[in-house]
Amino acid sequence: MASDREEKKELGITVSKEENFSEWFSQVVFKAELADIRYGLQGFVVHREWGMLILRRIYEMLEKKVEKDGHLPVLFPIAIPKHFFEKEKGHVEGFAPEVFWVTKAGDDDLAEPFALRPTSETAFYSMYSLWIRSWKDLPFKRYQSRICVYRYEHTTRPFLRGREFLFFETHDAFRTHEEALEQIKRDMHILKEVAEKKLFIPFIFFRRPKWDKFAGAEDTYAADTVMPDGKVSQIGSTHDLGQRFSKAFDVTFKDKDGKDKYAYITCFGPGIWRMMAALIAIHGDDKGLVLPSSVAPYHAVIIPIYFKGKEEIVDEVATSLKGKLESAGFRVILDDDKEKTAGYKFYKWELYGVPVRIEIGPKDVERNTVVLVRRADGDRVVVSQDEVEKALKEQLLRNDEVIKERSARYHVIHEAKTLEEVKELAVKGGFIKAPFCGMGEEAESCADRLQEMTTLKVRGVPLDSEEKPSEDDRCIICGKKAKVIVYLAKAY
Amino acid sequence: MASDREEKKELGITVSKEENFSEWFSQVVFKAELADIRYGLQGFVVHREWGMLILRRIYEMLEKKVEKDGHLPVLFPIAIPKHFFEKEKGHVEGFAPEVFWVTKAGDDDLAEPFALRPTSETAFYSMYSLWIRSWKDLPFKRYQSRICVYRYEHTTRPFLRGREFLFFETHDAFRTHEEALEQIKRDMHILKEVAEKKLFIPFIFFRRPKWDKFAGAEDTYAADTVMPDGKVSQIGSTHDLGQRFSKAFDVTFKDKDGKDKYAYITCFGPGIWRMMAALIAIHGDDKGLVLPSSVAPYHAVIIPIYFKGKEEIVDEVATSLKGKLESAGFRVILDDDKEKTAGYKFYKWELYGVPVRIEIGPKDVERNTVVLVRRADGDRVVVSQDEVEKALKEQLLRNDEVIKERSARYHVIHEAKTLEEVKELAVKGGFIKAPFCGMGEEAESCADRLQEMTTLKVRGVPLDSEEKPSEDDRCIICGKKAKVIVYLAKAY
Repeated sequence: MASDREEKKELGITVSKEENFSEWFSQVVFKAELADIRYGLQGFVVHREWGMLILRRIYEMLEKKVEKDGHLPVLFPIAIPKHFFEKEKGHVEGFAPEVFWVTKAGDDDLAEPFALRPTSETAFYSMYSLWIRSWKDLPFKRYQSRICVYRYEHTTRPFLRGREFLFFETHDAFRTHEEALEQIKRDMHILKEVAEKKLFIPFIFFRRPKWDKFAGAEDTYAADTVMPDGKVSQIGSTHDLGQRFSKAFDVTFKDKDGKDKYAYITCFGPGIWRMMAALIAIHGDDKGLVLPSSVAPYHAVIIPIYFKGKEEIVDEVATSLKGKLESAGFRVILDDDKEKTAGYKFYKWELYGVPVRIEIGPKDVERNTVVLVRRADGDRVVVSQDEVEKALKEQLLRNDEVIKERSARYHVIHEAKTLEEVKELAVKGGFIKAPFCGMGEEAESCADRLQEMTTLKVRGVPLDSEEKPSEDDRCIICGKKAKVIVYLAKAY
Repeated sequence: MASDREEKKELGITVSKEENFSEWFSQVVFKAELADIRYGLQGFVVHREWGMLILRRIYEMLEKKVEKDGHLPVLFPIAIPKHFFEKEKGHVEGFAPEVFWVTKAGDDDLAEPFALRPTSETAFYSMYSLWIRSWKDLPFKRYQSRICVYRYEHTTRPFLRGREFLFFETHDAFRTHEEALEQIKRDMHILKEVAEKKLFIPFIFFRRPKWDKFAGAEDTYAADTVMPDGKVSQIGSTHDLGQRFSKAFDVTFKDKDGKDKYAYITCFGPGIWRMMAALIAIHGDDKGLVLPSSVAPYHAVIIPIYFKGKEEIVDEVATSLKGKLESAGFRVILDDDKEKTAGYKFYKWELYGVPVRIEIGPKDVERNTVVLVRRADGDRVVVSQDEVEKALKEQLLRNDEVIKERSARYHVIHEAKTLEEVKELAVKGGFIKAPFCGMGEEAESCADRLQEMTTLKVRGVPLDSEEKPSEDDRCIICGKKAKVIVYLAKAY
């Protein structure tokens, strides 16, 4: 058996987040038992215990929100027959290079290969054409949750890019384009409610430039958050598919005037993996994970401090505290392992990001006190055991506040007027606002040149932004009169 | 728009369960929006809204039970690399003909094809060999839920046999074989707690004959329920894998004596689809589904009875009743659609199997009463609005009791001593107990002959059965002295 010191070393994060974010991230993912990349197949990770306990809380929050917004759950096959896939031209062009194909079963070659879904538009809308008949069926709002999708990516990283990754998607059909656009706003609101209000991930919602739309969409709206390395990560997107897919899949309804019309379709995909990555990266510190109370598998860990001959009484009080807190609705674990030191346990549960540690030793038993330590800032309070519920509630709230306050620190927006300024600011990370010649196809070549020169991408224009370029503003690339102020960033 | 009468006809089940079970089952699955087989790919169904709402309650019950039993959630890749699959000889032989292969991605041929998991032993144990080190890590109990598995079946049917079907699996490693066998008993207990106590599906747990084991197992224990057509359906199984897989995948641990030893492994798969099929088939009637309160998406539907000029007051009382019942913890839906008749709504919610219908009309408003109608037996009670919570609780309980009482009617066990008797009883459906020459390889040829002649299969010996053949009992096939009393049945 390894010594306590050796075990601690194996347990702990050995690099600083500030100095080597990439290695820090990999260590947290592995050591806090979020995911294991040793499965032996690139881009296919094993989701581990602590990760699953967090992820299912994210899923539950989303499920509740979309159901409250009128969505019902469905589950579609993983298999997309080749001919479905080919019905919407823009869609197949975008996804074809990324698709895994099932071509054999047993000893048989399949007559028609099927794809593992890279996303599910073609699956949903092939059935919507059967399910939707009248304007009375609209809006028709469905979602599927706790699934994976499959994309043949070339560089992969747990929670950032996978060949298999966790997914959540809504698919909604409407009578009018206006109603579809209203839904887009509600989708954004749902993402805000979960990612920003519950997970404390700050983000900006952009309308993406035309050249960066979802394959087959009229318009794509997507949320970007800044990661600690200064690169931005898309944590969700919602798409105005217009009537493109309804025409490809014959999703029609008999309208009030008796005429058959094509439905307007939107689809929304909060990025489960990307939210998880942001949660790990933005809040974590050199000790490991730091979890908001909304997704922490346990709100608190109770760690008894044993002294020889006093184990029993300490355990007794710790057990009774646990019961008391659980009755009050808290999720609590008691770590009463006698073979590990208290120090080892402090280390371990800090790595796991549990919001509050509750210490109880023989002195506390005598004095009827208990010690609460917040994970986010290490602050300690000593309270009467009689007030432990109230104290835990307060410390959880405060822990969340600390996480929230800190979460803004990577979320920086620089301003530039020229390519030179852009280049200088690029090393600082975050967003750079700059004048640009457009968001349509006419500006794509400028975007390409920018990316070649700086690796920066045009993320788009923030939604509801009133910002207009001034008379003198010139596109940072072509020098033509600027039509928009766009946000630039390096991206995952 | 279709007339109310036409819509009712489209909605309703048009065949009797008694007369044509197979067609009845298909109609309930389709019309109650459980699954849709029109996706266009054999064996891949779309799980629809009402089905998903029921299925997730089944999943939640199982998740709670296995977690209480010490299992933690994980999620493994869907992909099983070819070389994993080939490590356990019995396993690969059993599954090879059933496996779907991914051979291409984008334009590339994959260097090594991967299978879509038909089950996940090889995936789990390849990682268990990394995760398990010491006897202190044991027992090591993990599960994955809300996933699908893939098998290349030739005849398919929603909830009975699919090429893609819902799955749930636990995989547990132990220090000793005794502990592994204890787990098998706990697995059975969990299945009993959910399938029998919550879903009212009666079943018998069998030790399967050696020729009908799970591919790669030492022993298989499986639960069979009798369906309304007299055939039995396996609704779950748990397997003693001994050290076979731990040897194939090098799942070892350092024992207390310092020596490296192979772990004993068990795995348990409650049949999500098969439980759903049994739920539909055993409890349903000619009006459609009949749901136990544990899985009913709504405990009650409130249907206001509208009379001209009284709509408003009826809606007001109905809405307040809904609020009152929801505050008391019930799941309630108010169907206040003004375009459908009350008759149509009665029909619809009966089809969906909602346990209690609450009717409220203008007369009820005047008298401060409300009518409760039980789905299972149509019994009506009129109660004061002030006592609606108590009344609903009672009616739900009684509805469950009626379902439970009735559920026994297909669960018949006949007895036979000769092949002639077996043949006569076979047409009656259910189980037939009969003397047999064994449960090991030596008896396989008798089992084969029996199946050829009668389509009956040997399901095994009930667990904890004390039943022994008498001195005179002879194997119904070979006529040798009987060693066991086995249960025979036609099977799905």
